[in-house]
Amino acid sequence: MKQFDIRPDKILLSGIKSLTDFSLNLLEIKTEAKGRGEIAFVGEKKIDEVQTQLYEYDFDEVTTKEKLKDFEFFDDLKDKKTYWLNFHGLHEVEIIEQLAKTLSLDRMTVRQTLDTTLRPKVEEYDHYLFFSIKSILKNDKGQLDVEHLSFVLGKNYVISFQEKMGDHFDHLRNKILEKLGLLRKKGSDFLLYQLLDAILDNYFETIESINDEIQAIEKIVLTNPTQDSLVKLEQLKQMAELVKKSLNPFKEALRVLQNRKTVFIGEGNSKYFHDLTNSCLSAIEEIESTAKSLEGLTNIYFSSLSQKMNETMKVLTTVATIFIPLTFIAGVYGMNFENMPELGYKYGYFITWGVMGLVFIGMVIYFKRKKWL
Amino acid sequence: MKQFDIRPDKILLSGIKSLTDFSLNLLEIKTEAKGRGEIAFVGEKKIDEVQTQLYEYDFDEVTTKEKLKDFEFFDDLKDKKTYWLNFHGLHEVEIIEQLAKTLSLDRMTVRQTLDTTLRPKVEEYDHYLFFSIKSILKNDKGQLDVEHLSFVLGKNYVISFQEKMGDHFDHLRNKILEKLGLLRKKGSDFLLYQLLDAILDNYFETIESINDEIQAIEKIVLTNPTQDSLVKLEQLKQMAELVKKSLNPFKEALRVLQNRKTVFIGEGNSKYFHDLTNSCLSAIEEIESTAKSLEGLTNIYFSSLSQKMNETMKVLTTVATIFIPLTFIAGVYGMNFENMPELGYKYGYFITWGVMGLVFIGMVIYFKRKKWL
Amino acid sequence: MKQFDIRPDKILLSGIKSLTDFSLNLLEIKTEAKGRGEIAFVGEKKIDEVQTQLYEYDFDEVTTKEKLKDFEFFDDLKDKKTYWLNFHGLHEVEIIEQLAKTLSLDRMTVRQTLDTTLRPKVEEYDHYLFFSIKSILKNDKGQLDVEHLSFVLGKNYVISFQEKMGDHFDHLRNKILEKLGLLRKKGSDFLLYQLLDAILDNYFETIESINDEIQAIEKIVLTNPTQDSLVKLEQLKQMAELVKKSLNPFKEALRVLQNRKTVFIGEGNSKYFHDLTNSCLSAIEEIESTAKSLEGLTNIYFSSLSQKMNETMKVLTTVATIFIPLTFIAGVYGMNFENMPELGYKYGYFITWGVMGLVFIGMVIYFKRKKWL
Amino acid sequence: MKQFDIRPDKILLSGIKSLTDFSLNLLEIKTEAKGRGEIAFVGEKKIDEVQTQLYEYDFDEVTTKEKLKDFEFFDDLKDKKTYWLNFHGLHEVEIIEQLAKTLSLDRMTVRQTLDTTLRPKVEEYDHYLFFSIKSILKNDKGQLDVEHLSFVLGKNYVISFQEKMGDHFDHLRNKILEKLGLLRKKGSDFLLYQLLDAILDNYFETIESINDEIQAIEKIVLTNPTQDSLVKLEQLKQMAELVKKSLNPFKEALRVLQNRKTVFIGEGNSKYFHDLTNSCLSAIEEIESTAKSLEGLTNIYFSSLSQKMNETMKVLTTVATIFIPLTFIAGVYGMNFENMPELGYKYGYFITWGVMGLVFIGMVIYFKRKKWL
Amino acid sequence: MKQFDIRPDKILLSGIKSLTDFSLNLLEIKTEAKGRGEIAFVGEKKIDEVQTQLYEYDFDEVTTKEKLKDFEFFDDLKDKKTYWLNFHGLHEVEIIEQLAKTLSLDRMTVRQTLDTTLRPKVEEYDHYLFFSIKSILKNDKGQLDVEHLSFVLGKNYVISFQEKMGDHFDHLRNKILEKLGLLRKKGSDFLLYQLLDAILDNYFETIESINDEIQAIEKIVLTNPTQDSLVKLEQLKQMAELVKKSLNPFKEALRVLQNRKTVFIGEGNSKYFHDLTNSCLSAIEEIESTAKSLEGLTNIYFSSLSQKMNETMKVLTTVATIFIPLTFIAGVYGMNFENMPELGYKYGYFITWGVMGLVFIGMVIYFKRKKWL
Repeated sequence: MKQFDIRPDKILLSGIKSLTDFSLNLLEIKTEAKGRGEIAFVGEKKIDEVQTQLYEYDFDEVTTKEKLKDFEFFDDLKDKKTYWLNFHGLHEVEIIEQLAKTLSLDRMTVRQTLDTTLRPKVEEYDHYLFFSIKSILKNDKGQLDVEHLSFVLGKNYVISFQEKMGDHFDHLRNKILEKLGLLRKKGSDFLLYQLLDAILDNYFETIESINDEIQAIEKIVLTNPTQDSLVKLEQLKQMAELVKKSLNPFKEALRVLQNRKTVFIGEGNSKYFHDLTNSCLSAIEEIESTAKSLEGLTNIYFSSLSQKMNETMKVLTTVATIFIPLTFIAGVYGMNFENMPELGYKYGYFITWGVMGLVFIGMVIYFKRKKWL
Repeated sequence: MKQFDIRPDKILLSGIKSLTDFSLNLLEIKTEAKGRGEIAFVGEKKIDEVQTQLYEYDFDEVTTKEKLKDFEFFDDLKDKKTYWLNFHGLHEVEIIEQLAKTLSLDRMTVRQTLDTTLRPKVEEYDHYLFFSIKSILKNDKGQLDVEHLSFVLGKNYVISFQEKMGDHFDHLRNKILEKLGLLRKKGSDFLLYQLLDAILDNYFETIESINDEIQAIEKIVLTNPTQDSLVKLEQLKQMAELVKKSLNPFKEALRVLQNRKTVFIGEGNSKYFHDLTNSCLSAIEEIESTAKSLEGLTNIYFSSLSQKMNETMKVLTTVATIFIPLTFIAGVYGMNFENMPELGYKYGYFITWGVMGLVFIGMVIYFKRKKWL
Repeated sequence: MKQFDIRPDKILLSGIKSLTDFSLNLLEIKTEAKGRGEIAFVGEKKIDEVQTQLYEYDFDEVTTKEKLKDFEFFDDLKDKKTYWLNFHGLHEVEIIEQLAKTLSLDRMTVRQTLDTTLRPKVEEYDHYLFFSIKSILKNDKGQLDVEHLSFVLGKNYVISFQEKMGDHFDHLRNKILEKLGLLRKKGSDFLLYQLLDAILDNYFETIESINDEIQAIEKIVLTNPTQDSLVKLEQLKQMAELVKKSLNPFKEALRVLQNRKTVFIGEGNSKYFHDLTNSCLSAIEEIESTAKSLEGLTNIYFSSLSQKMNETMKVLTTVATIFIPLTFIAGVYGMNFENMPELGYKYGYFITWGVMGLVFIGMVIYFKRKKWL
Repeated sequence: MKQFDIRPDKILLSGIKSLTDFSLNLLEIKTEAKGRGEIAFVGEKKIDEVQTQLYEYDFDEVTTKEKLKDFEFFDDLKDKKTYWLNFHGLHEVEIIEQLAKTLSLDRMTVRQTLDTTLRPKVEEYDHYLFFSIKSILKNDKGQLDVEHLSFVLGKNYVISFQEKMGDHFDHLRNKILEKLGLLRKKGSDFLLYQLLDAILDNYFETIESINDEIQAIEKIVLTNPTQDSLVKLEQLKQMAELVKKSLNPFKEALRVLQNRKTVFIGEGNSKYFHDLTNSCLSAIEEIESTAKSLEGLTNIYFSSLSQKMNETMKVLTTVATIFIPLTFIAGVYGMNFENMPELGYKYGYFITWGVMGLVFIGMVIYFKRKKWL
Repeated sequence: MKQFDIRPDKILLSGIKSLTDFSLNLLEIKTEAKGRGEIAFVGEKKIDEVQTQLYEYDFDEVTTKEKLKDFEFFDDLKDKKTYWLNFHGLHEVEIIEQLAKTLSLDRMTVRQTLDTTLRPKVEEYDHYLFFSIKSILKNDKGQLDVEHLSFVLGKNYVISFQEKMGDHFDHLRNKILEKLGLLRKKGSDFLLYQLLDAILDNYFETIESINDEIQAIEKIVLTNPTQDSLVKLEQLKQMAELVKKSLNPFKEALRVLQNRKTVFIGEGNSKYFHDLTNSCLSAIEEIESTAKSLEGLTNIYFSSLSQKMNETMKVLTTVATIFIPLTFIAGVYGMNFENMPELGYKYGYFITWGVMGLVFIGMVIYFKRKKWL
């Protein structure tokens, strides 16, 4: 996946970067992938080998397994335990098809999991619930990563698919292992809630990082408006747009979950999903505020430009208005008429200097009053 | 909680303040709080110690208690009385958890109460109704405070949670103590109505103070448009945006209350909540009007800028247009050709002055007609 | 209630008036009234003494009474007659409370009637229907009046509350007295329809008067765009906004009436209310057209500004471009080199004039071709 | 009815016409008509005498009658025939009231038919369906006519009311007389469909004529942006707005028809009305595209203005920048110092010319590189 | 059908093309076609002769036929096979009417198929489902083609109508013949899904090609903003608008399909149509992003213009401000006063040069500091 750099210094120093560069990559991948077949990985390979981890836990104990070869344990789940199977990397289609076979996952579920260009979606099947989503997060280099995540929620298991190794869920792993919070007390639906909540937190972080960018660009816009700063503003608008574009179907999917009473979410836990919807609305409101700030800054940018122009004109007008009449006076006494009485006066030259001095001072006072000087 | 200064003199004298400074603080607190745990106070500590007051009243008598240590009286409420328990300060989580235990409040209620970054929400439980809201109010220093308020409405009690000591409800305390209005005649639902109504009054006050700001900035925009005045306008737009962002979920919550017929609101009192919804709509309409005024002022600001520029250009054009031809004439008679008959004429010099005078007067008349002088 | 002057001459001659002056008065009254109590007159006293008139009519006869002291006749209404009780002035709360007692009107009805800052509303009770509305009308001085009107529709009576003496309903009084139209043949619901229809007619008149303003300002904008004309445009936008803000809840209220089949409106007469809704939609469409015209004029205003600037620049450019080269030529022959052959030529001076003349004519032709002269 | 001229040559040659002139005429007529009574013709008389034609047809035969005196044949309609009664002119209220009496049409139907200022509407009664609509069509003089049309659909008759003689339905008359298409095979509902379809065709024609206008104005905007072209653009925007304003209630009315299953439209024919709705949506989409084109042209207009200004500035800057340094050089050697060695050099003058020539050429190259020359 | 060229080089080199040229062609065809009759081909003939192909397949075998003369095989379809009949070209009305007769297709279906100007639509009949759609695709010459496509879905057949020979479905033909994917395993509903999916892929391709255009125009806008680049931007906006205008009714049609449970789509396959809706939403989101990019570029364009103007003014101001005072000094010593002591000083001339040099250097430093040089 292409990444884009949002550090203001970089954009401002290294020249203009394309406005449309980052927001369209999914589209490119999609169009390239056209016709490859129906079940295939569509996206960028971000990890060398697909990794799997399995957490099997109840309140009393936890066991973990890594690099699973097969998924036959699914045929023999213990009712009282919760199972969390996590994938890093989606490009080894066979593994996922094998899993799909074991759990009789629908073809569409597999497609939706493997095609990273698809829209977020929630889908309920007889024996499981499918949920896919986009995550947006700033990486270590200060760039934004868009990741396609999918979840399968069964009676007592959750399967999560991520495109690469990441730290979305590290604190949750910790909670499970250290018996923190409610995770070990609650079932698979609560686990899904926590997973989705972690994704939403990423969104809030991303929005705040965009806001930080805005504050950095703000001063530049006010004092020295260059093309680069407008390009930066428009780029931030597009980032905000990208965030909003990812949040909206997330919200829709959560709404669907809330409205369709599903058997996979315990009655007592539906309030957590209600809470997620509310958080999601809140994130959308934040990003919309951000977008409005950006509109305001664009206004200020154009006003800055006009002010600069005004200033330029004032310098020209002041200098020209002061010196043009003086030059005229000098020109008059440079004429070669034979009969010009003033030329013969002893103090004519000095009187002329005096007159020019007075005109100069008068002009300066006039411009001072106009606050142009 | 960060506060921002909206006195126009201050903003205009003390230099540019950041556009995005005030509207994002909740977001910052939220992102910092990420991962702290599930039940925790998220916000700024605005009071040293948590304060509690209890009002127990019916039509005939009132008793008040302060600094409650435990909440066991809830196990023994008298049916005919109304109880109002008020909290100032939310940062002592134990107290609120103790209360939650006594009243078997849901975990989500506690979270919603303690996390000041969450969106307003209404939630009905079997034995109580939960309502959270944002209050926006101008404080003594002329700054805006955003406060997170929560309410729990039971059969005959109301519990209200405020972030700090404040005067939102002083007049209500007075009404209870002095037996004014209907409060002592009506039950807990009417008390909740009065509490929410007081919050809405704050919104109207805030909107009016924004309108006052607008009137103060208006003249400056018309006569002397500076960057500062545009920044101020954009800041006011963001304030209006903040108010709208807080009012919208308030309206939603009230609508939910109206639609879900709830047992906690007596049938005869539902009209009061209908009335609140209407007031809320009215506040939204007012703030939208305010936003339109701000749009209009932005237009006027840019027009002012253009007018200023036009004026500058007129000064330059007038002076240059008058003196450039005159200087040309003087230049002609400064040439050193041997055979220039005019130079020898006795009155050549004076005739030249006359011609220059006529050109000058002609130009002045021309510009007068154009209304540039 | 504050009034604002919309005569274009006035605004344009008497200097700039505040943009936000008129649309916020209700808000001011509202914020001042905060905490005065629950049932109180909130508004401006527009008439010295409260006036009442009662019309009692059926197809055969009409009787009228004025200055009623009590409302006990309500206990003894004749089934076949229609009663219309009209109030001018709302500030004598006791009278209205006495009426409320006689007819067992709800507290909220009384509040809604007395508080002129509240939003339009329709409310159905067991024994009557309440309807409140804003009227906007141009008064004799060419100013806009916003008035709060309320109606109570009972089985065979209508009570109307106006803030002041006015001519909203004069033609209806005439129709009743002179047996014109259908009024005497129909019941109280038809009377209410006619009352509301009269209010809608006021809106249409107001919209047309705003359109007249627009036509007056249009020429000024095209020929001589000043700051004042932009301020006027923005003021008209706000007026249009005020009208729309009042019409929208009117429409909502009528829709509520149409959807909730109510016993107070005879089945055969519901079509009249359907008709009102349609008229209301039509008024909203008109005011939205008006708003679009204003947007268009704002565009033209800014274009006019740019054209003016362009014109200024053209004058400067033309004069400077013509004379600067000429002055240069004159300057050349003003040099004092000892060896300048041209200076000694007999016709050098005249040839120079010729050259300068040619340059001048060439320039003039050039600018003529560019259509700058 | 007032008409407006949309030929671009006319608007551009004959000076500025009022922006708001044409779209408000209905409003003026409406406000003037206020209080005239309840059943009256409201509009402009567009034809001297009211004309009527009756077509009575089935698949086998057609008979036509004109200038009907009474409508008693309605009491004796033959079940297997379809009757189409058409009115040209609405100002003879008695004729229409007589018809209303014969067919027991509702008072509101008569009012809706006679008041040309009312909004389009569909209304179902026990024994007929009423449909009113606006038609917009370009007339022979290239002007737009807005016409109010009403239709009454009974079991086997259609009555159509037009304001004037027109050619809306000529091709339908032909189809009936010549037995073309399905008209003679189908009943009154199909006739109504065909009538409404003819009106929609007028809309498409009008939209296309606006598009033609846009193409005519486009070149002018790009090459020579004048105030007139902006006024024209804004006028076209208002026309587009007028078309949209008329189409929207048309669409609403058709939707009502589709949703309320009515007995007057045979089950097999409801698809035709579904088709009308789709056509209407298509027309709305077209006019919205047109509106967007106009927005785009306004952008281009303002850009053109800026480009013109830029060009002006470039001319000034080029000429001034080239000649000001040259004039300075000439000025230097015009100084009268006694000791100026260059003056005495034999070739000083020519060297100076050379230097000035080099400066000139250097400048020209500089501006060529900047692409200003 | 008219086509338009979207290669940026072409538009920029070959002069301005009309903004409204391409998006209105359907409208022109429509208005011309008015009154031609009810069942007729409305559109542009894009192929000489109408072509037909029939695919008859089940999992085991495939047979194909071309240039069918009659459609009697429809009377004798085998239950277990799927039939796909494809038309290239619509202008031979008789063929399609013959087909309609064989399959008892409704008149409206035929009209909807033949009139290429109609809006996309879905319609369910007793024995088949009709679906029409617009396809937008870039052709070999880099131009956009809008094509009207219709589909009839029966129990075990699909009929597709295309305006011309095209490659929309080539990969599907291949899949059928080569037994790839699920096509041979599934029935006619799956075939329809695949056909519609291929159309959607075209949309994604088109959107990406618009994005490519945007990237090409972006640099030009930043470095050398000309009228042509703005016209290009507005043209791209209209293209985006055209795509959105075609996608919206597509989405609507798919939604109708999803909501109306239809017998023609097997229960297990309805998820594929759900998937199509999601893809369609995704395409709409992409095109809206694209539209926002275009808005951003328009902002940047206007900013570029202002920057250019600013630059021009800076050149003028710098040159004028430096040389005007110098010329004044030279002018002073060109005066002819008899008593000008400086003129007699031996080094007067050189000192003057020195002073002028200092002024020059001072000015240059001043402008360097201002970053104008």
